[in-house]
Amino acid sequence: MTQYHAPVDEVESLLNNVLDYRAHYQSLGIEFDIAPEDVATIVAEVAKFADAELAPLNKVGDKSPAQLIDGQVKTPEGFKESYRTFVEAGWPRLAQQQQHGGIQAPFSLKFIVSEFLQGANQAWCMYSTLNDGAIKVLQHFGNDHLQESYLPKLISGEWLATMCLTEPQCGSDLNLLNAKAEPRDDGSYAISGNKIFISSGKHDLSDNIVHLVLARLPDAPPGTAGISLFLVPAQLEDDNGGMRDNAIDCLSVESKMGLKGSATCALSFNAAKGWLIGKPHRGLRAMFVFINKSRLSVAQQAQAQTQAAFQASLHYAQERVAGKPAASASTSATTIVHHPNIQHMLLFQQAISTAARGLLTWLAMQADLVDYGNPDQQQLGAVRLSLLTPVAKGFGSEIAFEAIDHGIQIFGGHGYTADYELEQRLRDVRITRIYEGTSAIQSLDLLQRKVSGPDYDTLQAFCQLILDWCRNTESKCSEGTKEMLALLERQVSNWLTVSDLLVQHSQENRPLLETAANDYMMMSGYIVYGYFLLQHWHHIGEEESTSIAACVRYYFDRVLPRADYHHALLKDAKRHEYNIVWSDH
Amino acid sequence: MTQYHAPVDEVESLLNNVLDYRAHYQSLGIEFDIAPEDVATIVAEVAKFADAELAPLNKVGDKSPAQLIDGQVKTPEGFKESYRTFVEAGWPRLAQQQQHGGIQAPFSLKFIVSEFLQGANQAWCMYSTLNDGAIKVLQHFGNDHLQESYLPKLISGEWLATMCLTEPQCGSDLNLLNAKAEPRDDGSYAISGNKIFISSGKHDLSDNIVHLVLARLPDAPPGTAGISLFLVPAQLEDDNGGMRDNAIDCLSVESKMGLKGSATCALSFNAAKGWLIGKPHRGLRAMFVFINKSRLSVAQQAQAQTQAAFQASLHYAQERVAGKPAASASTSATTIVHHPNIQHMLLFQQAISTAARGLLTWLAMQADLVDYGNPDQQQLGAVRLSLLTPVAKGFGSEIAFEAIDHGIQIFGGHGYTADYELEQRLRDVRITRIYEGTSAIQSLDLLQRKVSGPDYDTLQAFCQLILDWCRNTESKCSEGTKEMLALLERQVSNWLTVSDLLVQHSQENRPLLETAANDYMMMSGYIVYGYFLLQHWHHIGEEESTSIAACVRYYFDRVLPRADYHHALLKDAKRHEYNIVWSDH
Repeated sequence: MTQYHAPVDEVESLLNNVLDYRAHYQSLGIEFDIAPEDVATIVAEVAKFADAELAPLNKVGDKSPAQLIDGQVKTPEGFKESYRTFVEAGWPRLAQQQQHGGIQAPFSLKFIVSEFLQGANQAWCMYSTLNDGAIKVLQHFGNDHLQESYLPKLISGEWLATMCLTEPQCGSDLNLLNAKAEPRDDGSYAISGNKIFISSGKHDLSDNIVHLVLARLPDAPPGTAGISLFLVPAQLEDDNGGMRDNAIDCLSVESKMGLKGSATCALSFNAAKGWLIGKPHRGLRAMFVFINKSRLSVAQQAQAQTQAAFQASLHYAQERVAGKPAASASTSATTIVHHPNIQHMLLFQQAISTAARGLLTWLAMQADLVDYGNPDQQQLGAVRLSLLTPVAKGFGSEIAFEAIDHGIQIFGGHGYTADYELEQRLRDVRITRIYEGTSAIQSLDLLQRKVSGPDYDTLQAFCQLILDWCRNTESKCSEGTKEMLALLERQVSNWLTVSDLLVQHSQENRPLLETAANDYMMMSGYIVYGYFLLQHWHHIGEEESTSIAACVRYYFDRVLPRADYHHALLKDAKRHEYNIVWSDH
Repeated sequence: MTQYHAPVDEVESLLNNVLDYRAHYQSLGIEFDIAPEDVATIVAEVAKFADAELAPLNKVGDKSPAQLIDGQVKTPEGFKESYRTFVEAGWPRLAQQQQHGGIQAPFSLKFIVSEFLQGANQAWCMYSTLNDGAIKVLQHFGNDHLQESYLPKLISGEWLATMCLTEPQCGSDLNLLNAKAEPRDDGSYAISGNKIFISSGKHDLSDNIVHLVLARLPDAPPGTAGISLFLVPAQLEDDNGGMRDNAIDCLSVESKMGLKGSATCALSFNAAKGWLIGKPHRGLRAMFVFINKSRLSVAQQAQAQTQAAFQASLHYAQERVAGKPAASASTSATTIVHHPNIQHMLLFQQAISTAARGLLTWLAMQADLVDYGNPDQQQLGAVRLSLLTPVAKGFGSEIAFEAIDHGIQIFGGHGYTADYELEQRLRDVRITRIYEGTSAIQSLDLLQRKVSGPDYDTLQAFCQLILDWCRNTESKCSEGTKEMLALLERQVSNWLTVSDLLVQHSQENRPLLETAANDYMMMSGYIVYGYFLLQHWHHIGEEESTSIAACVRYYFDRVLPRADYHHALLKDAKRHEYNIVWSDH
């Protein structure tokens, strides 16, 4: 069993050499509680916590899942204690507003170090990652009373939040949502209904759990235009300042393929007391503030797991002896890291993790612009996030699954056993392709809602950004890089043309976008990753002596060409309709 | 939870309409114990057994894995009883030689119905599927005494067999094998060493377990030329006709990602008594008789799981309501089977299962030729099996994993829970890409050992077979099929050209074959599946009203083009070498 080590050097290299993070930090133009020169310390400290506290609990959570006992949920051994340590160290306060106890810093700083937590223990992170979104929602839409009552303890991490959307009959399609909210005389509401797949719906990590619940008011119009958002705490303050249980039951904890340390609950709200957040019937808009942040976080889970899988796979490949590659001068078996097939899989993992980290960190920096920039910067950051979040989450989770799956092959039969961590990582990461909107939903969001809607210009601007970078770089790079720049430019040009084609055709053929969405997302993802990878390579000085050299070339030789496959299908998308005859069951 | 139903109609359609199985059966020219007109009864009876007895135990095995208790292995509840029923019904005797109690029938008949057992319960099948190979090995290489002592009870199914190759330091590379065999005065051997990953190494389904063990004699040359094969029974007959334990300990049962109902054991042989099978130092040759059959069986596991996943996915998609596709005239949400994205995934599953079944059944019929044909037919069957077994197993398991994985997406969040069967099927099938030689090993077998070696002519002949069929079919098919024939012909022509290119280049650049092997296997697989699928479609009369229509067109539109991606990489394979710099751990 390999021990996870937070990839501090890789992150530092990205921040310092590629993204010029310090300049970004300073350009945000406000005095943060954390000075730019302290970023490295934060990175190092979180890395230490992840390595020492969380990584050893990863397998524990898988072996001894969260379980429901007499209505209470017991989290895996050690989860509670390490969460207490986390809170006492003040980490939840990072990048939250001072007003309610936060330590002010850019969102991107918190996001960057979150990779370490996610890589060390994705299941553990589930308990606390939803707080970010809940805090955002309350700050945007909560009234003063709700803010004063809930923000301080959510920001300190003493209380934890959930997001209650899904119902048994209602997942991706929120039109089908049934939960009800009845107004009460005191201005509160009685919330009733069954919610499923509620991450951290019940647990023992915090004294209170703050549920954000979607439900319908009595006068609600049908469909998503009739959904309101409510804050429903597990514990209510009683008249003498003590706490009493709200009317919420945990009916079950799901038995899942992976992420077993995370309690995924079915909750029953039985006229539970709650308060409206924002305006009646406008809950979905509020919730999407939450969901978009969560999607970035899910994308990061996939990236962090890829990095961890790469680390473990490389370590194993450097130790395991088997076979002798034709190119080897050795007379006996070598370590398997010398086999081309194993090298390809390792290079794939490294390329995907590196590219994804580049994209995600850049997106987090766009979120900083939304938080702290001038109006133009806010607008720019927002549209970039809008366009690229579905790529980062949808494509990112799909390709991460493939990368981590390679790890099992590298470990051979051992990879299939629980003695090593790979099979758990694959099971854990599998959910990233589903929750916060499946990959299909991401692809429809990208093509149907964004590119063929308001974000077409954003796509053009982003492509122009890449092309400008390519042209600027051509004059100051090696021949090898020049070749890759040309490949990237060709792909970007295909991307623009085919986007145009699809949007045009879709005017008279609306189903086309649904048929084309997945290929479109995949093609976009390969190109976007290619850009971030090549940029990374160029900005670290095209150092052939680094391990990045091979993985960038590998990506451009063998992974980016997959965009051509998707492109060919997209160009031809009009005829891909099938007259399907399946007998009913 | 969907109940598995053996796909009897699909199998019947393949046998009757596509492969003309009856003519094949009769052409084998011997009087079998089962008349050709009884084939349908056998198919129906095994289907009944699979549906009623095995399918309900599939989840049981996953929830309550085989476990080691005081040196004994307890199999999951119901496994033992259903195995007894299986034996009492006489199924293990099917397609075995009469001489030792078998019911003579072509191998292909047994193979065809095995899909139902594998689809119903892959883990359960692990206990008995190895008998086939062990019987084959004993028939080919065992002396009369071993045959008389072991064949009757292996054929009846009273005793079960294992294959003991792997050791902790030795998996794919058998050069590293350490187990020892010391000759004893009585002509037997004392076998010592540790073996791991031994499927059914210990269990309670049969009174005896017959281990086939690879080990080295004292005078063995190093490497694979010094490996001998031994029969080492768990129980030895003592002098008074009773049974006593041989010196074999079960050290542990692996905790695995899936296939948990199957006991995967670490065994310690402590000077256990065994007998040489075949000639000294020639054990690997004997073992490969075993392994090649096993590889077909593994390929079938992948196909059977794909079929089962398709069935469950389709059922769910026809019931679950969410969203409204643009093409729908409905004013409210529809069942998800109407969404293009879901349809694509279902069509992928159906295409892969149908194509794989076609290929595998045809290969099983080649094995019939090896068993019963004249010398020319024997030769023809053998080389086809040699060439296409790595495609069927390597490509087949890779693509099946993708198809079954789609099932989880179709189920959405529910697919990630143990309430449905999909996540288990994905975990179970994951091992098919590893055991009996990983996909990387299959790809090297195909390109390095076969195509660039003695089977180059076989490849040319097989391609010619496809091209001839295409040309014969062109004159009697629809326009749509003609289009697909042209696509297939183009792919076959690429396949031939690129094979030639690789073999040529490899003369001076031997590592090239290792670099190219995976893409070569994948390209080959897409083409071979395309052929079997199109053939199927044509032979069922190109009936647009069948569900096959859409899945064939889908495959040719959207899956076969992946061969172009691999082809492009292969054409360019010479430059894909990477100067890799990874720091050592």
